[in-house]
Amino acid sequence: MSEMIHDKSQLSLALEYLDRQHAGNLRQLLELLRFPTIAAEYPENAAAFQGCTNWLVEKLSGMGFEYAEGIPVQDAPPVVYAEWSGAGTEAPTLLIYGHYDVMPVDPLKEWKHSPFEPYLDEQRIYGRGASDDKGQFMAVLYAAEAWLKGTGSLPVNLKVVLEGEEEQISPHLDEYLQVHRGRLQCDGILIADMGGLDPQVPLVMYGVRGNCSLEIHVSGPARDLHSGTYGGGVDNPLNVLVRLLAALQDGASRKVLVPGFYDRVKELTPRELALAEVVPITDEAGVYFTGVPALGGEPGIPLKLRLSSRPTFEVHGIVGGYTGEGVKTVIPAHASAKISFRLVPDQQPEEIQWLVKAYLESIAPPTVRLEVKTLGLAPPATVDLDAPVVQASLKAFRNSFGVAPCFVRGGGSLPILLSMQKLLNQDVLLTGFGLPEDAEHSPNESFSIQQFQRGAAMMVHYFFELSQVMK
Amino acid sequence: MSEMIHDKSQLSLALEYLDRQHAGNLRQLLELLRFPTIAAEYPENAAAFQGCTNWLVEKLSGMGFEYAEGIPVQDAPPVVYAEWSGAGTEAPTLLIYGHYDVMPVDPLKEWKHSPFEPYLDEQRIYGRGASDDKGQFMAVLYAAEAWLKGTGSLPVNLKVVLEGEEEQISPHLDEYLQVHRGRLQCDGILIADMGGLDPQVPLVMYGVRGNCSLEIHVSGPARDLHSGTYGGGVDNPLNVLVRLLAALQDGASRKVLVPGFYDRVKELTPRELALAEVVPITDEAGVYFTGVPALGGEPGIPLKLRLSSRPTFEVHGIVGGYTGEGVKTVIPAHASAKISFRLVPDQQPEEIQWLVKAYLESIAPPTVRLEVKTLGLAPPATVDLDAPVVQASLKAFRNSFGVAPCFVRGGGSLPILLSMQKLLNQDVLLTGFGLPEDAEHSPNESFSIQQFQRGAAMMVHYFFELSQVMK
Repeated sequence: MSEMIHDKSQLSLALEYLDRQHAGNLRQLLELLRFPTIAAEYPENAAAFQGCTNWLVEKLSGMGFEYAEGIPVQDAPPVVYAEWSGAGTEAPTLLIYGHYDVMPVDPLKEWKHSPFEPYLDEQRIYGRGASDDKGQFMAVLYAAEAWLKGTGSLPVNLKVVLEGEEEQISPHLDEYLQVHRGRLQCDGILIADMGGLDPQVPLVMYGVRGNCSLEIHVSGPARDLHSGTYGGGVDNPLNVLVRLLAALQDGASRKVLVPGFYDRVKELTPRELALAEVVPITDEAGVYFTGVPALGGEPGIPLKLRLSSRPTFEVHGIVGGYTGEGVKTVIPAHASAKISFRLVPDQQPEEIQWLVKAYLESIAPPTVRLEVKTLGLAPPATVDLDAPVVQASLKAFRNSFGVAPCFVRGGGSLPILLSMQKLLNQDVLLTGFGLPEDAEHSPNESFSIQQFQRGAAMMVHYFFELSQVMK
Repeated sequence: MSEMIHDKSQLSLALEYLDRQHAGNLRQLLELLRFPTIAAEYPENAAAFQGCTNWLVEKLSGMGFEYAEGIPVQDAPPVVYAEWSGAGTEAPTLLIYGHYDVMPVDPLKEWKHSPFEPYLDEQRIYGRGASDDKGQFMAVLYAAEAWLKGTGSLPVNLKVVLEGEEEQISPHLDEYLQVHRGRLQCDGILIADMGGLDPQVPLVMYGVRGNCSLEIHVSGPARDLHSGTYGGGVDNPLNVLVRLLAALQDGASRKVLVPGFYDRVKELTPRELALAEVVPITDEAGVYFTGVPALGGEPGIPLKLRLSSRPTFEVHGIVGGYTGEGVKTVIPAHASAKISFRLVPDQQPEEIQWLVKAYLESIAPPTVRLEVKTLGLAPPATVDLDAPVVQASLKAFRNSFGVAPCFVRGGGSLPILLSMQKLLNQDVLLTGFGLPEDAEHSPNESFSIQQFQRGAAMMVHYFFELSQVMK
C-alpha cells in the first residue's frame, strides 16, 4: 500500500464529510438501536445478536473498512471485527473497542417509549444503548468513515473490536483477545464508552473501579412455612439474609465491615489530588442529577472522590418470599441477594470475593444454610497519563469541544481495560461523549445529538493528532 | 317446630350415615377444591368466588339446611350463610365459622400437581385449601348432614358463616357481623380452622397470636442509577432497607428491638404453664417437620412456647432492583418490604404499628424517603377454657379420636376470633383436624383423609355433647 501524507486540508475534508453525513448517521443509529441485544438475556435472544452483528458488518464494509466479520465465540454473542490498514506500516495502528450489547430494560413500565423503538427529538436520541455504548462507538466509526469517504484514506491504521457481553462483565473477551492476539497487535487502544460532566467538561479517564459481584443464598426450611404456625420456632431465611447484608456495611460511616477489605486500597498521589481538585463536581450537581433527598456515601470525603476513588457496597436485588398483592405471612424456604462491591487500586477482586465469603460464613447462624456464588469479577485499573494515545486526545478535544478534558478516575468497572492492557500490552485512551443525563442503565436512556456530533468530530481530529504524535 | 329428643341411638344413626357417605363426601370435596378462591387476587378472580359460593349454597341446601344463601359484601367476596333451627328454642344454637378463600399458590413451580387440580392418594387429599380451610369446614358440615339425613334432625340449632377473606385478615367481616348481628345470635361459636400435633394429639386452642402486617417503602434517586457512575455518592435504597429491617430484630436474642414492643406482653399463668407442660412438642419434631438445619427463635424458651406465646418478627418479601438472570449493577430508585409481627396478649396491633413506624422514622437516614404502610392488623385473643362450648369437646374428642385434646395457644392469627367474641358476645371452641404435614400456606397443601373422617365423626359427637352440656 502506498504511504499517504495527511495534512490539515485533508482533516478539513474529513470534517466536512462528517457534517454532510450527520442526518444520515443519526438515521442509521436509530436502526442499530432497534436490536434488543440485552446480554443478560443471551442466548434466548441470540437472533437479536445475530441481526445486530450482520447489520454492523454490513455497515463497516460500507464505510470503507477492508475487512469486516462477525467472529463466532462459543456460548457467547459474536465479536464484530473490522480492519483498515491502508495507512501503511509506518503509521500507528489504533485498536478501537466498543460493545453492542446493552443493559436489561426493567422496570419496563417506567419507559415513556418502548426501549427498542428508538426515536429522536430536537436534542436527543432515545432508546436502550443510545449512550451505552451503541451511540458512542458509532460516533467513532463515523469519524473513520469521514476520513475514508472524505479523503480516501485514514492517517492511522484501525482495528475495530465490538463485543456483545460487556454488561455481563465480558466473560469471554479475554479468551478472544488471547486467541486473536497476533491479529490484534496495535500501538494503542481507544475505548469510547465513558462520558463528560457536561458539554463543556469532557473527561479522560485514567482509571476505573473494579467489581466483585456475588449472589448470597440463604436456605432454611425444606418448604415455605406459615409464619403463624412456625414463627418463633425457626429462623426466617429473609430475616437472616437482611442481617447478613446489613452486617456488610456500617450504616453511619458506610464503610464495608469485611475484615481486610481496605488493606490494599492505595491513597491518591499528590498529582492525582491536584487533577481531582479542578474537576467541577459539586454536591448540588449530584443532588440535581440523581433526585435524592440528600447525598449519601462516606462522610468527610468529597463527592468526586467518593464516586471514583473509594470502594462501595451495593445490594442490587433480593429474591424470596411473597412480593405479590396483599398479605402472605410466609417464612420462605430460600432467600437470595445479588450484591456487588466496587473496588479501587490495588484491591483484587479474587481476594475480596474470598474475604466476603469467609466473613459471611463466620457470621451466618447454624439455623440456615449459606451459599455464596461469584457472578463476576473485574479488577480496578489505571492508565498512563503520559502515553501518546492519551496525550493526542488533548488537542483533539480542544479543536472539537473548545476545551481540554479533565482527568478523572471513573467509578464504573471496565474489566476489558485491564484485559486490553495485559493481553495486548498497550496504553489505552479511555474517554467518551456520554453525559450524566443520559440515564444509561436506567429507563429512558438517551444520548445528546450534539455530543454524538461533537464526539465524531473529536475522533476525526484524534486520528490526525495520533498520527502526528506517534509518527 | 316440635321439640325433639336426641339419644345415643340417634347418635349411632348419624355416625352410620356419615360412614356410608365417606367416599361421596371426599368426591364432593375434590369439586370444592377446584375453585381458585385466592383472596389476595380478588376481585380479578371474582368469577371463582361466585362459582364457589353457588356450589356451597347448593350443597348446604342439599344437606338439609333450611336456609342457605350467598350474601353480597361490598368490594369483597360474598359470605355464604346457612341456618337450621329445627332443634327448637330450648336447644342451644351453635354458630359455625369457616372460610372458603385460600392462600396464594406461589412458588407455583414447587407444586407437583396444579394447586387447583385436586387429587387423592391412599392417605391424603391434595390441593390448595384442602386443609386450610375447605376440607375442615366441610368435615363439620358433613357431620350436620349426617344428623339431618341419618336421623331427620340435629340435637342443636346451627348457623353457618363461611367467609371469603380470612387469608387477607378478614377486612369486611366485622362489618358483616355488625350488620347481621340479630340474625347471628347464638349460644356459642365453633371455629374448626386449626389442627392437631398428630392423629393421637388433637388440640383445642385457647388463644391465638395477633398480627401487625406492614409494608416499608424506601425511595432515593428519581430513577434507577448505574452503581459505577453513582455508587458511593448516593445511598442505595436497598442497602438502607436491609439496615432498617436488620435493626428491627437482634440477631442473637431474636428480640424485636422496637422500644415498647414487649411492654404489654403478659406472662403465662401457672395454669397455662401446667397445660403447656403436657403438650408433646419436641425440638426433634420441630426439625423433622420443617427441615431446618437447626431450630431458631429466642434461645432459652421451649419450642412450644416460642411458637405460640412469644411475639415474632418476620420479613415476607422484598421488592426492588434487579432479580433477573445475570448481573445488573443498579442502584434502585425504590425498595420495599412486606413484614409482619406476631403479637401475644395483651399487645395491641394498632399501638405496635405506631411504635414500629416511629422507630423506623427515628433511624432512617435523611438520604432516603421512608413510608410505612399498614397492610393488616389482628389482635391476639384468648378464650375461656371453662365455657360449655369448650368443655363439650372433651368427650366428643375422646369418643372419636380416643383421647382428650391438649390445650394450647395457637401461633397463627385469627382476627375473627376477637370479632366473634366481641360482636356476638359468645364463647368459642377453637379446634380443627389439620396436621403439621398438611403444608398449609405452602406448595402441595394436603389434608389427611383419616383426619377428615375422624374430624367429621368428632363433630357428630360434638353436636350431641353440646346439646347435653347446654340443655
